[in-house]
Amino acid sequence: SSKVLLRPRTSEEVSHILRHCHERNLAVNPQGGNTGMVGGSVPVFDEIILSTARMNQVLSFHSVSGILVCQAGCVLEELSRYVEERDFIMPLDLGAKGSCHIGGNVATNAGGLRFLRYGSLHGTVLGLEVVLADGTILDCLTSLRKDNTGYDLKQLFIGSEGTLGVITAVSILCPPKPRAVNVAFLGCPGFAEVLQTFSTCKGMLGEILSAFEFMDVVCMQLVGRHLHLASPVQESPFYVLIETSGSNAGHDAEKLGSFLEHALGSGLVTDGTMATDQTKVKMLWALRERITEALSRDGYVYKYDLSLPLEQLYDIVTDVRARLGPRAKHVVGYGHLGDGNLHLNVTAEAFSPSLLGALEPHVYEWTARQQGSVSAEHGVGFRKRDVLGYSKPPEALQLMQQLKALLDPKGILNPYKMLPSQA
Amino acid sequence: SSKVLLRPRTSEEVSHILRHCHERNLAVNPQGGNTGMVGGSVPVFDEIILSTARMNQVLSFHSVSGILVCQAGCVLEELSRYVEERDFIMPLDLGAKGSCHIGGNVATNAGGLRFLRYGSLHGTVLGLEVVLADGTILDCLTSLRKDNTGYDLKQLFIGSEGTLGVITAVSILCPPKPRAVNVAFLGCPGFAEVLQTFSTCKGMLGEILSAFEFMDVVCMQLVGRHLHLASPVQESPFYVLIETSGSNAGHDAEKLGSFLEHALGSGLVTDGTMATDQTKVKMLWALRERITEALSRDGYVYKYDLSLPLEQLYDIVTDVRARLGPRAKHVVGYGHLGDGNLHLNVTAEAFSPSLLGALEPHVYEWTARQQGSVSAEHGVGFRKRDVLGYSKPPEALQLMQQLKALLDPKGILNPYKMLPSQA
Repeated sequence: SSKVLLRPRTSEEVSHILRHCHERNLAVNPQGGNTGMVGGSVPVFDEIILSTARMNQVLSFHSVSGILVCQAGCVLEELSRYVEERDFIMPLDLGAKGSCHIGGNVATNAGGLRFLRYGSLHGTVLGLEVVLADGTILDCLTSLRKDNTGYDLKQLFIGSEGTLGVITAVSILCPPKPRAVNVAFLGCPGFAEVLQTFSTCKGMLGEILSAFEFMDVVCMQLVGRHLHLASPVQESPFYVLIETSGSNAGHDAEKLGSFLEHALGSGLVTDGTMATDQTKVKMLWALRERITEALSRDGYVYKYDLSLPLEQLYDIVTDVRARLGPRAKHVVGYGHLGDGNLHLNVTAEAFSPSLLGALEPHVYEWTARQQGSVSAEHGVGFRKRDVLGYSKPPEALQLMQQLKALLDPKGILNPYKMLPSQA
Repeated sequence: SSKVLLRPRTSEEVSHILRHCHERNLAVNPQGGNTGMVGGSVPVFDEIILSTARMNQVLSFHSVSGILVCQAGCVLEELSRYVEERDFIMPLDLGAKGSCHIGGNVATNAGGLRFLRYGSLHGTVLGLEVVLADGTILDCLTSLRKDNTGYDLKQLFIGSEGTLGVITAVSILCPPKPRAVNVAFLGCPGFAEVLQTFSTCKGMLGEILSAFEFMDVVCMQLVGRHLHLASPVQESPFYVLIETSGSNAGHDAEKLGSFLEHALGSGLVTDGTMATDQTKVKMLWALRERITEALSRDGYVYKYDLSLPLEQLYDIVTDVRARLGPRAKHVVGYGHLGDGNLHLNVTAEAFSPSLLGALEPHVYEWTARQQGSVSAEHGVGFRKRDVLGYSKPPEALQLMQQLKALLDPKGILNPYKMLPSQA
C-alpha cells in the first residue's frame, strides 16, 4: 500500500487537499487524535495521511471568560501550559496529553481525568472550524457561551472521528485554575465500600470534587511489579483516588479532612494518605495513570472501555476472571468510577484467537444486557466498528450511515472507520 | 385555517400520528416548549398540533448518579420538585418553569438561570428518545455519562425546535442539591465596575458561584413603578445579583463575606445586601426575574436576546437609546452577564413599523459586527428565521437545510420555523 503524508498549515490548505481528493476519489486519513487504542488514526489501505501537526497556533485567548481559540494541531499539554500561565486550565486532561492534538481530542470526544468535574466536550467546546469532504470550509468558530441560531452543527463533528469532516480550529471554554488541589489515596475493603465512599464523597466534598478514580488490587500489584511503584497504603482489595480542586485551600482541606475522618471512622476506608504538595500529588496520580503502561509490560493486552451502571460496574471483572481462569495472566478493572466508566483489561502471554473468542462477544453481550456502552471514551475506530450494534439500535445506525452519506458522499474521509462495515 | 389538537400518551402514539401525517403530507406542530417569544410553538397555517402534555411520567431516577429519565411532557417545575425531594436539582431553571415541558426545553436548548454553573443542555442531556418525521422511533435514551459508540445523534435534536423530530423522552444529569444558597444584590457605579465585579467574583467565589445577573437602573425603575417592588439598595446605574451554591454554609458565607468586603472597599460596588434565608433570597431574585413582566406592563415590547463579547455587552443599549431618543418609552439592558447574554428590550406606547425599522436590521448588524449571536437562548422560531445569516455563514445555513431535508424530506415538522424562508 502507498501512503502520502501531507502537513498543511492553514484551513485553506486543508480545503485545497480535500477538494483535490474529493474530485479524484482519494481516501484521506486525518491524524492527531487519541485513537491509538482502536486504530482510529491508522490508515488501512492506500490513503492520503493528513497531519495537523503544523497547525499549532493559538488564535486568541480571553482572560476574563477563559475562552481559547486555537488551531487543531495544538498539543494538549502545550495548551495546558499556555492557559495555566494565564490562571486557567484546559477542561480536559488525559494520559496522552504530551502528544495528542486538541483537534483529535475533539474528533474522538476524549473523556479523561477531568470529565467528572468539567463534563463532556459537547458542553465545553463552543465552536469549531471544519473542512468538509468536498473542501467547503464550515466556519462555526464562535466564542460565545450561548448561541441558538439554528442547528448546533459543531456537535456533529465532536466524536465523529474524522469521518464527517476535518476539524481545523477549536474554540473551547477553560475553567479558572483552582488555587488548591488535594489528592487522597484510600484503600477500600470491597467494591460496595468503593460505591459508598463515592456517595459520601459527593455529599461531603460537593463542588470541589474533581476526580474519583478506582483500581483493583491486581492493578496495584502490576504497577509495583513492572514499574516499581510502591503502594502508599496497606494492601486492600480496592483503591480509590479522590482529587479536590477549589478556590480556598483552608476550606478544601477542612472538607477533605472531615470526609476522611468519616470514611475511616465508618469502615468504608481501611487506610488512606493525603497530598497537597505537587510532588506527592503527582506520585499518587502516577499509580493510577501508569496502569496502562504496567499492563503493556505484563504481556498482550485485551482492552475494553465500558460504561456501566455503577452497581454492576465491577461484576464484569469478576465474571471474566472466573470465565478465563488460568488462560489469562491477569484480569483487572480500573477507571473513572465517578463517570461510570470501567477499563476492563486482560493480559496474556500472547494474542490467542481462542482467548479472544472467550472474551468476545461475551463482554459486549454482557454490557448490552446492562444497557451499557461498549465504547465509553476511546471511540470506535477500525476495530470496534462492528460492535456498535451492542449499544445502539438499528434505527440509530441507519441515521449515522445517512449522515455519513450526506456529508461525505464519496466516502473519502477516514474510510473503514467508525461505522459498521455492513449497514 | 383549521387546527386539530392531539394529545398522545406514548411514543408509539406519537409514531402513529407522524406516520399518518408523513403519508398524507400534513404539517405537524409540536408544542410544549418555551418558544413563546419567537412564536416557535404557534401553528402558522393548517397544522396538526401535537401536545406532549399527557406524556408526563417520570420513567426512572438513580439516587447515586442523579440521572433522571422522563417523558417529554413533564413540567420543569414538577421535575424540580421531584428531584429536590431526592436531594438533587434540575440542571436548568427558568422563569417559565411552571408551564414549560422538559421536551420543549431540550428542543429549544433553553438556557436560563443555572447555565453559568451547570452549562448547556448539550452537556447535561445524556439521552433522548425522538420520533422522526416518518414515524421511526429513535431510541438514544441512554443513562450513561460517557458513550462514544458512533455519532452523538441526540445532539442534532437539542435546539432544533421540533423541526427534525419530536422529542418524546429525556435522560438528564441532575447535580446534587446545594446545602447552602446565598444571594448578594449590589449596586455598581458603572458598567466597567460590573465587569470588574464579575472578574473578582469568579476569582474569589470560584466553584460556588452559581449566577451572575445584571440589570440597569431603568429596569429597577420599571419593576418599582409597575410591580411595586422596592430596591433593596441605594439607586445606582447598575445592579448585580450574585448567587452562590455550595456544600458548606460556613465556608460559603466566609467566601462571600470576603468578596463583599473587597468589592465595597475597592469601590467596585457602592451598596449591597445579602440573603441566606429563603424568603429574602426569593425577594431578591424577583427583582431580576420579574423584569419581563414589568416591561410588558410598560407598553409594546421589542425584544432582543443577544450574545456579545463582555466588553461590548452594554454598548448596544446606550447606542439604541441614543438612536431612538424620545421615540422609545424605555430602552433597557439586563441579563445573564456571566454567560455573555444580554436581553435588550425597548418599550413604546404601541407597535410601530417605523420604530421597528429603526431597530432592525440595525441591532442585528451591530451584533454581527461584534461576532455576536442574534439569538442567544430563546431560539429562532418563526419571527427570527430570516436573521440567522447575521450569526451564521452561508455554508452553515446550507448544511442546516440539508439536514432538514434528510430528516424531514416532506417538510411536515414545524414548517415555516427556524430555517430561513429562502435558502
